[in-house]
Amino acid sequence: MSPLRVGLAGLGVVGGGVVRALAERERLQGRAGRAVVLTAVTARDRNKARDLDLGNARWESDPVALAKAPDIDVFVELIGGSDGVAKDAVEAALAAKKPVVTANKALLAKHGAHLARLAESNGVQLAYEAAVAGGIPIVKGLREGLAANGVRELHGILNGTCNYILTAMRESGRDFADILAEAQALGYAEADPSFDIDGIDTAHKLAVLTAAAFGTEVGFDHVHVEGIRHIAAIDIEYAQELGFRIKLLGIARLTDHGIEQRVHPCMVPITAPIAAAEGVFNAVVVDGDFVDKVLFVGRGAGAGPTASAVVADLVDVARGRVTPTFGVPAEQLKKLTPASIARRVGAYYLRLTVLDRPGVIADVAAALRDAGVSLESLLQRGRAPGEGVPVVLTTHETEESRMTGAVSRIAALESVVEPPRLIRIEQF
Amino acid sequence: MSPLRVGLAGLGVVGGGVVRALAERERLQGRAGRAVVLTAVTARDRNKARDLDLGNARWESDPVALAKAPDIDVFVELIGGSDGVAKDAVEAALAAKKPVVTANKALLAKHGAHLARLAESNGVQLAYEAAVAGGIPIVKGLREGLAANGVRELHGILNGTCNYILTAMRESGRDFADILAEAQALGYAEADPSFDIDGIDTAHKLAVLTAAAFGTEVGFDHVHVEGIRHIAAIDIEYAQELGFRIKLLGIARLTDHGIEQRVHPCMVPITAPIAAAEGVFNAVVVDGDFVDKVLFVGRGAGAGPTASAVVADLVDVARGRVTPTFGVPAEQLKKLTPASIARRVGAYYLRLTVLDRPGVIADVAAALRDAGVSLESLLQRGRAPGEGVPVVLTTHETEESRMTGAVSRIAALESVVEPPRLIRIEQF
Repeated sequence: MSPLRVGLAGLGVVGGGVVRALAERERLQGRAGRAVVLTAVTARDRNKARDLDLGNARWESDPVALAKAPDIDVFVELIGGSDGVAKDAVEAALAAKKPVVTANKALLAKHGAHLARLAESNGVQLAYEAAVAGGIPIVKGLREGLAANGVRELHGILNGTCNYILTAMRESGRDFADILAEAQALGYAEADPSFDIDGIDTAHKLAVLTAAAFGTEVGFDHVHVEGIRHIAAIDIEYAQELGFRIKLLGIARLTDHGIEQRVHPCMVPITAPIAAAEGVFNAVVVDGDFVDKVLFVGRGAGAGPTASAVVADLVDVARGRVTPTFGVPAEQLKKLTPASIARRVGAYYLRLTVLDRPGVIADVAAALRDAGVSLESLLQRGRAPGEGVPVVLTTHETEESRMTGAVSRIAALESVVEPPRLIRIEQF
Repeated sequence: MSPLRVGLAGLGVVGGGVVRALAERERLQGRAGRAVVLTAVTARDRNKARDLDLGNARWESDPVALAKAPDIDVFVELIGGSDGVAKDAVEAALAAKKPVVTANKALLAKHGAHLARLAESNGVQLAYEAAVAGGIPIVKGLREGLAANGVRELHGILNGTCNYILTAMRESGRDFADILAEAQALGYAEADPSFDIDGIDTAHKLAVLTAAAFGTEVGFDHVHVEGIRHIAAIDIEYAQELGFRIKLLGIARLTDHGIEQRVHPCMVPITAPIAAAEGVFNAVVVDGDFVDKVLFVGRGAGAGPTASAVVADLVDVARGRVTPTFGVPAEQLKKLTPASIARRVGAYYLRLTVLDRPGVIADVAAALRDAGVSLESLLQRGRAPGEGVPVVLTTHETEESRMTGAVSRIAALESVVEPPRLIRIEQF
């Protein structure tokens, strides 16, 4: 059979990993049933020193030209960014009836439904295993492995930077800013970390998984997003004491009101399987109506794991194994009906900083009572008469709108001296 | 597109689950790109009361006739057993150029390479997601999702009955026989439990996974198999104290001497991800050279999870997604070169029952020293002068042959009054 000729745009960390994975020619010949050959490449700077053997691959100066080049059979997009050249090149490849393999979650989160239709109308596939959870074969698991199921819910740790920070905070007892600086020094966090720590990256990935799980258009704009900046060492400490771990999760759930999509820090029981995924690891749980819960854990980033995902997609292309972008044909994708987070039902952890004087707790309790929220536990440790002290409470299950109502009233109390910190509790 | 016409042999628990999963017609139409229709069935007893809506499916009296029937496009084998009618029917279907979906690990463990060749020479696929780890899409994950990787090692909890028993022993502190009887009463263990608790079922599944992971012929005869009958409550107690959990694992590892395949109880660190899979859950870890370690956890048995796997295979068939049985073309399957367990390198836990009198420990220590085995810890609690008391020790890493040599000598000591119990320690 004729070789599959690969055009690769982007020779950064992941691109380098892909080049190395493609160098395992004998292995790929067996798995793919034909040779998979790196035929042409492009990168921003051709002259940059790279410790890579590009073999006989020719250089193309422009990703769009590469995407359309007659000597390639499949286009691998590792450029990144939701628009600009990455989008132009992917569209060019699909329009030229060339399958696309991409690691670009931002692109899919913003233009997923459009690109799915473009791929389908051109009769080629758009593969993106590397876009979500790095080396974990979750896209394949969801779209193919769990194809018999109606998905009820999925949740995941989808950003290794955040999970690293939260794990290091727990292990060291140190505060967020401190650990972030350390993560930046170690290369686990970017110089501008907001994309990761404010939850945007997780939201991109969640939006893509949601579409694949529920057969809907990608609904990134409907994702409720909160990051981990406000998590303090004291929250981690209280979480431990209450039997929880704090994780930044992406959660998608089918409810009576539509599909809930949210990204925020959660307290999860220490015994929940996802709690065991620590450090840079990613993890995803899918709850299907036949299979029940399936958990996937692995490395969510890095050259090797991401290349593993890209090359798996290439093997699918080589073998002609085709799956619609979001599991069902693009014209059958449903519009996503978003369920507001205000209707979320669950328990809450609330940390307040209050002046240590009589009557404060009574005011807080009254605000909760008036909103119909039932208190489960309350902890006030340490005394500092007249000064700010932490008070931590947990509630029984309630609707989010009630809780936010109570929290606004609590925040306005004169004796509450810092903004209240609310963390949702998820009992998976 | 024309519907995929399914012939289903076996209407037990799993068969019933498959019938129910196929009833989700709209869902499957989207995922499979065409209707998947239950066209004909067969079962041992047609007249048995079943709470199943078989729709318009016609009855066939004989699995072999069903396998060859001109009105079916794919044959689903849920009969079981490594030989006899299950094998005859699968061979008949493949010879008639019909793809086969099976949950039969015994059949694959014994005849996997033969059936892979038969499938390939007839140009059809042999799919078996349901044969290993129930609802976990591990076969797909391994053969397709991790296709870029050279597998270095894999290990798994592949038998829910054993994991249930070990978990219940730990939680209750009760002994093996007691928990087994309870599991039988609850339907988690068979009336004749030896297939499960002696490790045979795990070995079947391990042999199949090994072939898929390493691209070899199935080498069931080379699997070293030990079950969990000899695990005592006291072992569980000591494991806890030493920071371990006891799990029955199937392990396949690429070594300098060949491929090691073994099934036996292991002590694994409580912090190892696989240790978190408790009760009836299954779990598999695959360690690949690009992806590093990926963990899959889910339900390993039951109508819903197993049907999820069977129907995922049917969706693959419906979409024409083909993968060679063991990841690479059947004619490229290598002969499996077995590595003897005698060359296993690792640490050990040894429990002895010794007469409580001076000098015994010195004799034991001398036997270990003479074999070149280095002691890591030794615990002797409780005194009963002149009677049998437990002594527990752990060793540093050593070669198995040294350890078994030392254990034989220890077993022969006059003051060692019961057979020594050896449990391998695995530091994943």
